[in-house]
Amino acid sequence: MKGLPSVDRAIRALSRFPGVGPKSAQRMIFHLLRGEDKRADELIHALEGLRDQVGCCRVCHNLAEGERCWVCEDHSRDDTLLCVVEESVDLMAMERAGLYRGVYHVLGGRLNPLEGVEPEHLSFASLQRRLEAGVIKEVVIATNPTVEGEATAHYISQIVTPYIDRVTRLAYGLPMGGELEYLDESTLYQALAGRRSF
Amino acid sequence: MKGLPSVDRAIRALSRFPGVGPKSAQRMIFHLLRGEDKRADELIHALEGLRDQVGCCRVCHNLAEGERCWVCEDHSRDDTLLCVVEESVDLMAMERAGLYRGVYHVLGGRLNPLEGVEPEHLSFASLQRRLEAGVIKEVVIATNPTVEGEATAHYISQIVTPYIDRVTRLAYGLPMGGELEYLDESTLYQALAGRRSF
Repeated sequence: MKGLPSVDRAIRALSRFPGVGPKSAQRMIFHLLRGEDKRADELIHALEGLRDQVGCCRVCHNLAEGERCWVCEDHSRDDTLLCVVEESVDLMAMERAGLYRGVYHVLGGRLNPLEGVEPEHLSFASLQRRLEAGVIKEVVIATNPTVEGEATAHYISQIVTPYIDRVTRLAYGLPMGGELEYLDESTLYQALAGRRSF
Repeated sequence: MKGLPSVDRAIRALSRFPGVGPKSAQRMIFHLLRGEDKRADELIHALEGLRDQVGCCRVCHNLAEGERCWVCEDHSRDDTLLCVVEESVDLMAMERAGLYRGVYHVLGGRLNPLEGVEPEHLSFASLQRRLEAGVIKEVVIATNPTVEGEATAHYISQIVTPYIDRVTRLAYGLPMGGELEYLDESTLYQALAGRRSF
């Protein structure tokens, strides 16, 4: 922006976020500038809090503000049941669903050799150490239903099977509230292949 | 977010922005957290730059990183021609259009008694001082085509007419590339009322 390098810099920093283009970044910046110093200060403090306080759970790699995340701290959870997810956001989605009462392992991403994400970049080593401890009896694989998620699920199963008899995965099928008419073929294929007795 | 008050705080701070809901704020935060400390630092520094370096032009109230904005610093601009806009973003839109070569006056908003914006909250006093100096020969009113913008335009014209003979305003009419079929009636009304010889 002419004569305003610091505005340009803030717009560039914001437009790197997913879903934020230069236009919406500009709108956000002008909202900040209209709000006097208070709004900017609030956001700066919030971001400093994020940077300084949020880290990784030492056990499961979920986001945590201390050594362990709230799931690992919760002694009422069933620690013989382990769900492997790609990211902390997936863990949160699982928690919102409300059924699961076991613990988690957060990989920190999914295998994607084309983008340079190889097994050593994900938390497979610490997954293996947890399995070796012998407490876990069932592993639920909950990677995303994408090509990379599938490949990652396959890789997880290879690591897990030497230690655990019961390895399961989330079911594929019709999304609740969806209509067959608008459903893609591969989901319908999975729903049919995985049909259950009524 | 369970066990993560600093994430909650950052989500709240971000979702106050226009066009950012809690979902997209959460996506932005997770993008930050995935990017190690570097991304957060960049954004924090950019925001500090905004807070500490961007102020108001002493002459026209446009955003500026010094005493005067880049328009007021540009001696090739015609300072007998003054365009009154609501906000700095409107000035930028005018500049993108590319035709205007005069200077500006940024009001800092529009009159809106229902939301408590009265004349004393906008920069009318300094507009009057600029008119009294006697350099300006024409005032172009470029408020937004809304009810409040209209009211503000009316108020501006009352302030300006004692000093200036030539008070103009942006033309209303068909937007370029639009189709009559989809145009609202009031724009079409204005386009007809303001028709010009071909």
